[in-house]
Order: sequence, then C-alpha cells, then structure tokens
Amino acid sequence: MNNLLKGKKGIIFGALDENSIAWKVALKAKEQGAEFILSNAPVALRLGKINELAEACSTEVIPADATSIEDLEALFDKAMSKYGQLDFVLHSIGMSPNVRKNKAYTELNYDWFLKTLDISALSFHKVLQVAYQKDALKEWSSVVALTYIAAQRTFPGYNDMAEAKATLESIARSFGYHYGTKKKVRVNTISQSPTMTTAGSGVKGFDVFYDYADKLSPLGNASSDSCADFTIALFSDLTRMVTMQNLFHDGGFSSIGMTEAFMTE
Amino acid sequence: MNNLLKGKKGIIFGALDENSIAWKVALKAKEQGAEFILSNAPVALRLGKINELAEACSTEVIPADATSIEDLEALFDKAMSKYGQLDFVLHSIGMSPNVRKNKAYTELNYDWFLKTLDISALSFHKVLQVAYQKDALKEWSSVVALTYIAAQRTFPGYNDMAEAKATLESIARSFGYHYGTKKKVRVNTISQSPTMTTAGSGVKGFDVFYDYADKLSPLGNASSDSCADFTIALFSDLTRMVTMQNLFHDGGFSSIGMTEAFMTE
Amino acid sequence: MNNLLKGKKGIIFGALDENSIAWKVALKAKEQGAEFILSNAPVALRLGKINELAEACSTEVIPADATSIEDLEALFDKAMSKYGQLDFVLHSIGMSPNVRKNKAYTELNYDWFLKTLDISALSFHKVLQVAYQKDALKEWSSVVALTYIAAQRTFPGYNDMAEAKATLESIARSFGYHYGTKKKVRVNTISQSPTMTTAGSGVKGFDVFYDYADKLSPLGNASSDSCADFTIALFSDLTRMVTMQNLFHDGGFSSIGMTEAFMTE
Amino acid sequence: MNNLLKGKKGIIFGALDENSIAWKVALKAKEQGAEFILSNAPVALRLGKINELAEACSTEVIPADATSIEDLEALFDKAMSKYGQLDFVLHSIGMSPNVRKNKAYTELNYDWFLKTLDISALSFHKVLQVAYQKDALKEWSSVVALTYIAAQRTFPGYNDMAEAKATLESIARSFGYHYGTKKKVRVNTISQSPTMTTAGSGVKGFDVFYDYADKLSPLGNASSDSCADFTIALFSDLTRMVTMQNLFHDGGFSSIGMTEAFMTE
Repeated sequence: MNNLLKGKKGIIFGALDENSIAWKVALKAKEQGAEFILSNAPVALRLGKINELAEACSTEVIPADATSIEDLEALFDKAMSKYGQLDFVLHSIGMSPNVRKNKAYTELNYDWFLKTLDISALSFHKVLQVAYQKDALKEWSSVVALTYIAAQRTFPGYNDMAEAKATLESIARSFGYHYGTKKKVRVNTISQSPTMTTAGSGVKGFDVFYDYADKLSPLGNASSDSCADFTIALFSDLTRMVTMQNLFHDGGFSSIGMTEAFMTE
Repeated sequence: MNNLLKGKKGIIFGALDENSIAWKVALKAKEQGAEFILSNAPVALRLGKINELAEACSTEVIPADATSIEDLEALFDKAMSKYGQLDFVLHSIGMSPNVRKNKAYTELNYDWFLKTLDISALSFHKVLQVAYQKDALKEWSSVVALTYIAAQRTFPGYNDMAEAKATLESIARSFGYHYGTKKKVRVNTISQSPTMTTAGSGVKGFDVFYDYADKLSPLGNASSDSCADFTIALFSDLTRMVTMQNLFHDGGFSSIGMTEAFMTE
Repeated sequence: MNNLLKGKKGIIFGALDENSIAWKVALKAKEQGAEFILSNAPVALRLGKINELAEACSTEVIPADATSIEDLEALFDKAMSKYGQLDFVLHSIGMSPNVRKNKAYTELNYDWFLKTLDISALSFHKVLQVAYQKDALKEWSSVVALTYIAAQRTFPGYNDMAEAKATLESIARSFGYHYGTKKKVRVNTISQSPTMTTAGSGVKGFDVFYDYADKLSPLGNASSDSCADFTIALFSDLTRMVTMQNLFHDGGFSSIGMTEAFMTE
Repeated sequence: MNNLLKGKKGIIFGALDENSIAWKVALKAKEQGAEFILSNAPVALRLGKINELAEACSTEVIPADATSIEDLEALFDKAMSKYGQLDFVLHSIGMSPNVRKNKAYTELNYDWFLKTLDISALSFHKVLQVAYQKDALKEWSSVVALTYIAAQRTFPGYNDMAEAKATLESIARSFGYHYGTKKKVRVNTISQSPTMTTAGSGVKGFDVFYDYADKLSPLGNASSDSCADFTIALFSDLTRMVTMQNLFHDGGFSSIGMTEAFMTE
C-alpha cells in the first residue's frame, strides 16, 4: 500500500455490513495507515456486523445517534481523548421513513419528511458543529459525506431523499466556508453511482434503476470499492485545496445525455 | 396592458407590504387580467397592510399558515369554490429563526433549523401536495416559488436559509416531475437578486451585500417590479414548456466571476 | 394578441422553411406587433422558402453569410437605415460539416471542426460585435441564440456541435457582460428540446433520439411553436433583468434523471 | 513517497519553466514512480528550460506542435516504441493571440479567435484522437487537461480564452464518452485557481485578479504544487471511476457567493 493516510486519525460513520461503502472505506483507510473509530446508530449496530469490522481494523465501535448532539459530543470526546485532534471524518448516513413506508412523493408524511432531513442531512451539520465547537479537527483535515445525483435531477423512486441530499450538499458548501476560513478544514460530498448496499437495494425498483445507470455510464456504475478508493484520495494530502465541492464518482453518468447503447437497442 | 393572464385564476402567497415581491406580482397580475386570492400567515396579516392590496385588486385575503395542511386545505377549498380549478400559484414565503435570533451558522439551534426548513421549503411541498390531491390546478397551470443563489453558493449572512432554498429548489424539480407527468402542471423557481423587501432588509449586513451584488451585476440588481414582470411571463402561456427549472433573474450576477468595476477601483 | 413587441424592431436569422424555429418566431413576433428583417445565408435562401415568410410578415429578406463581417455590416446598415436602433436579434444558425459527412467524433476533420465553430458559434460573436461597434441596439434590447443541452451532456450523434454549442453559450455570457455593462443589452441562449426542423431531422438516428427525449420529458418535447412563444417572452419587456443565462425550454428534460415510464416498461 | 504511479508511463505537455503546473506535475509524477516523455511546442522549448526538467526526471523532451497531427503522431509513435501503451497524459496548453495583442473582447480578430480555439482546445481533441486511433492508451488510463472557471462565469480579462476553456471542457466530456465506452479510458479537466505561472502572470491586471480570487477562496488560491498533487491523484488508480468531469481545484472559490472578508472591509 501507499501509506497515504499514515498517522492520520478519524471517525467513520455508517458501516453496517460488508456491502456498506463505509465498510470498504474503513478497510482501505486501515491499509493506508490510518487509525479511526467506527460509529453507527445503536439500532444499526444490532442489525449489522460492525464488530467484525472493528476487529479487522483493530479498533473499537462507539455507538452514536448522529441526530443527537449529546451522542456526538460523547463520541468526539472519546475520539479526542484517544487520538487528539482528528484528520478525517466520513459521513455515510441516510434514511427516509417515507421511502421505508412506501409513501408516494405526492402523499408525504411531513413529520417523516422532517425526520428524513434530520437523519440524512442535519446529522452532517451536527457532526461538523460539534467538531467545530470542540476544535476537534486539525488544519487541513478532510470531511466527506456521501450523496447522490438525485440532488440535481429527479429519480422518482428516490422520493424525499432528493431533498435530503440537496440539503446535505448545501451544508457541505456552507460549513466548508466557515470551517475552511477558520481552520483550513475542507468539506466535500461524493456523488456516488447507485450502489448495491444493504440499504440501497431495499428501495423499490432498485434493480431496474441500477441497470439503467450502469448502461448509461461509459465506465459502468462505480463500485463501493472504487468509491472507497476515491474517499481515500479525498482524505489524503493530495487533495488539500479541494473544498465545498460535490464530486461525481459515477463512471461518467452525470455527463451523459444519451448513449449509443440506448439508441441502437 | 397585454391581457397575458386574462381569465386566469390563482393564489398569491406572501404579500406583506408594498415592498414585497408578492405585492408587485398581485398588482401586475391584476393589470394583466387575472383574478386571485391573497394569502399570508395570520401573524403577517396583523403586521402588514395586505388588506389595502386586496382592495386595490378587488379581491379578498384568506389567512393560512403555509406549514399547516388544514389551513392550506381550507384555503384551496375556498379558492376552488370561488374560481373552480386554478391557473397559477406564487410561493413567496421564507423565515429563519436562526437568522432572526442572530445564531451563527456554526452555532445553529436545530429545532429552529427544522423550522426554517418547514416554513421556507416544506410549505412549498405542502401547497403542491394539497393542490395535487384536490386536483386544484388546470392542465398547463404554472407554479412559481422565489429563491436565492445562496442555494448554489455560500453567502455567510444567509445562514440556514441556504439549505432552505436548496430544499425548495429540489422540491420544485421533484414535484414538477410528478405534477408535470400527471397533469402537465409546471413548477419553477425564480432566483432573484437581493431585494429591498421588509424581510430582506432586516438581515444583518444586508446593505453591504445588496451593493456588492448590484455592483457585480452587469444590469444591476433586479428590482421587485421587474421580478413581478418575470413572474407574469412564467404564469403566462408563453412559457408552457419551461418546468423543473431554477431561473436566475439577477441582472447577470450568477454568471459573473469578476468585473472591471472591481478590478479598477 | 398581446402587443408584447409593439413598436419593437429586430433581425431574425435562420428561417429556412415552416419547420424552422426562426420561422415560427417571425410569425409570432409579427403577431405581437414587431417589425423585423429576415436574414439567412445565400445558399439557404435558394433551398428554402423564406420569401413566402417575408411576404406573410410584410417584410424583406436580406441575405448574409453570418460568418462574414462584411455581410453582417451591410445587413445592420440596412436594418438601421430602415428602423434606426434595434430591439431584438434572434440567432438560429448551426451547421457541422463533420455531421453532414458522417465523420465519427473520433475521426474528426479539423478544418471542418473549425468551420463548425465558425458557422455555429463565432457567427454569434460576429453578430454581436458588429451590432456593438455600430451601436445598433437600444438600451434593454434582447439578443437570443438557440442552443442544445449537448453543451452540458454528451449525446453521441451531436458530434462536434456539442463544442459549438458550448462555445455559443460561453459567447452569450461573455458578450452579455460587455454589452450589459455598456448598454444594458441582454444576451441569453434558449436550450431547446430536439425539434423536428429540416436541419435537425437530417441527423442520423434523430428519430430514436427525439422519442427518447420526448419520453423522458414530463411535458414531452417542446415544439417549435412553444419555443417561439418563449422567445417572444425573452424579447419582451417582461424579462429585462434576465441576462447571461442559458434557459432550458425542454419540458423538464434537463432536470430528469430517470422516469417511471422507463422503469416500468 | 507513495508509489502511486509505480510502473505507469505517460506524456506531459506544457512544461515551460519552474512556474509551470506541468513542471510540478513532472517532478511529482517522477517521485511517485512514473516514467514519461515531456513535450512542448518548438518555440516554447527555445524560451523555456525544459531540458533542465528532463534531466531532473531522467527523461527526454520530444517537441511537438500540439495543433499538428503529424507532430502528435510522431510523438505518440516515439512514446509507444519506448514504453508500449501509456497510462496518463497531461494537457497544459493554452494561448490566445487576442489576449497577447490586447484586443478587447468586443473587437476580436476572428482569425486569432480560431487560433485561440485551435491551440487551447482543439489540440486536446487532436491528442485524444491520435491516441485513440493508435490505441496508445491502456484500459483505465487517465487523461487530464487544465482549465479555468472562466468557462462558467465571466472574467473580462480572460477574453476569448473563456470560449477556449468551454470548448476544452466539452471535448473532455465528449471524448470521455467515446474513449470510456471503448477502452475504459477516463478524461477529466481540473479547473485550477489563478496561478502565478509565466503565462498567467503576463495577462493584464493579473495581480488584482489573483488577489481577488485569493481573498474570496476560503483556503486561498491553490498553488501549482497542490495542483500537481491533485493531478497525481487523478492519474492514480484511486480515481478510476471519475470521468467526463470538470473538477474545481480552487480552495473553494467556485462555491463562494460572498465572504465576510469582503463584507467587513
């Protein structure tokens, strides 16, 4: 390996099982020399196998509900008492009760809509605000959240997660300004291809959708492994001046209008 | 006048006083032959002079809290009993408790953040969902919401309204897909220059900000009068195939990197 | 009609036959009270039926090769001697020798590539530069060019016209800055749905492509008639503060990621 | 170093002297284990000190006018006879006669405008087309060109280079589609901060412009050194699924509307 993250410390949110992008990021960050704490919601911990991952990475899991300031404060306190200031954070958190319960976009439950926003977007602001107030991040550290192109274009099945991702990307820009100006911390989002995670594949019609994107992308859909590689690049010192950006990691999908594969079938 | 809205009926949300963009839209819609109901939050009705406007437009005011489904249902019921199906809706609603109380973006109160989103963005979804479920809009009718470029780029003083506007614009796209597919209703946002409304000018540092944008825009800042003109164009049949768009009405500001005015001073 | 262009004078480039967008713009501009000169390349005049259109609009045709400064100067001189300063210009000009001769994008002839750029994009700069130097446009006049979303996303059949449209849109921004700052002239592009013009329908695979866009657009493809309506709105005083913009007039296509129509077939 | 490019071979266009971004890329690519040929126009070779760089990198310089297919074919033939198929190409080439001769954007010389496009944009297509036809690039190889945000927003001093960069970025998308589909080659552009290169600093008013961007960017302007780091990341296997993208490497400039630094002065 390349020691790209040698000596770097961080927190990785959102690893559930071996299909999670955060799971792959953890493995690759470890390979590149990083140390980190794994975190996920208490309920996710019961359902997933994150302890296996912790073992493989010689680290520990600290549960935290990312919508709870108290949980996040406790998490950052523990991380800082272990590592001092941190170098990177991954936010891979998203959930929509409206999607789960199959509410149509034209029949949304608004308490759930606010919950979608709180869990999937405001949680990112909370992570950043807690880190900012605790001065938990070193200069030039890197914060990354995962997003999807539904923030720019409509994919009906994505439902109110479209708004959550639009909010998330806006938070990356807004907080990126404040944290960059004050501490040279960079904040970006990776807009990833549809990915066969345990969460993703639960969405109705996900297969058709996955195949459509795969066919439309010149390089095919980006895998969770390659997404983890790209995340490593963003955590490394090679990308210190990239901030407040939404970076498409999608095999070219976002720049495609139509392909010959569609025209000739 | 040009009779561009002759025979068209609608609802205009958000007129407070003669500085409001919605106020100007009402006057111009009237001139162009439209009939409409004015609506605003009960509290805004007490503070403003919307009854003067109603008189000038020979219409009535129906108070509605745009975050309340019940209020919106009652409003649409009354509008439909008066006019039948409608042709246009203007959403000019926004408020951030965090801005009001001078909370820094790095010290947000999260209950208030959710309130900002509910009032300034989810209210737009609620208006659309109520209209959609009541089948309140004719084919080819036009729905417009007002937004600001802080949804794309960071303006520190705009605070969590940046996220609200990003959410609002996403709702325009998402609902525009559903309503367009089902009923050929179009949904767009106008991204307007900073405007000297009673609400806008209350924001800290608004003057500096207004002048900066004015200086950077080749045509200067767009006035509320010209914004009303543009809104009329979007309500008219001249723009029937424009949907799911965010349209910059800003004297060119959004396409400027730098101007000679800045370079030579 | 609405007298939206009453008293306004202009030049309309690019009407060939009744399928041309420029043809429809001419008819609707006439209806709205405008007077204008029609212009097209000498070769296009021989192939088309523009004289019929001139008759219907009680005007004349002045041939001009829009890549020739001399021709453009003569045209603007005649127009100004007839009308004085002008209020609007439509640029609907595009041609790619590489597309015509079926050269693949990976086997371009570079002399032809430069010709594509000169005819389809630099011609727009030439029109603007001649107008600017002759002070041919009134304050607040409106210049519009037609473009296509291939400037943002790849549509293989569009070939080097993608680069021509990217250049054209950049010229609208750049010249819009200069002309706006000096004379409050606004310059925009309309990014129109694929249109069954005589030129468009000659492109290989155009039918499949047209149907794909039509199916993906919530309102369907925008017709040339509705494009003419939108152009009238941009020529009118309703849009005086819109400049340096690329405006999608496409039934929502540009904001669509995927539709249920595709997912369920 | 991290051996990120161990065993990789390439061509680097555009190193002139130690202020060139391409110069820094060469040094860092060498450090990371790559081998490559340096190329520049014959005239640039006379003016610069590229032979020093070649020595430092234990490699050779092969002159090529990047607008000449013959020169490019000879260059790729030599490179392939030395290395076999290649893994990366850097295009850092741009020149505008109109800028050089201080022609205003409203008084352009059109032969020079075409020259600007040919040198600064079509050269990139020529490099790609020659590589494509010779099958010179391995699967998953990476092609990068340097660009500037003037392709999206107007910076008056940038003149017709705005159109050149818009064309360049369009070529990256278009060719990225073809090369990606056929050979999984990725093609991207890096949109870099204003940089104190020998070329850049020759532009009129560059200092004011540089300072403006520096002040507006939360992390300050990105240096040529950090741009080289980012280029290495794009050449490496960490970014294999990123293609057809324009990536801002600018300290956040592109996402800024206004900063407190401007508001408080």
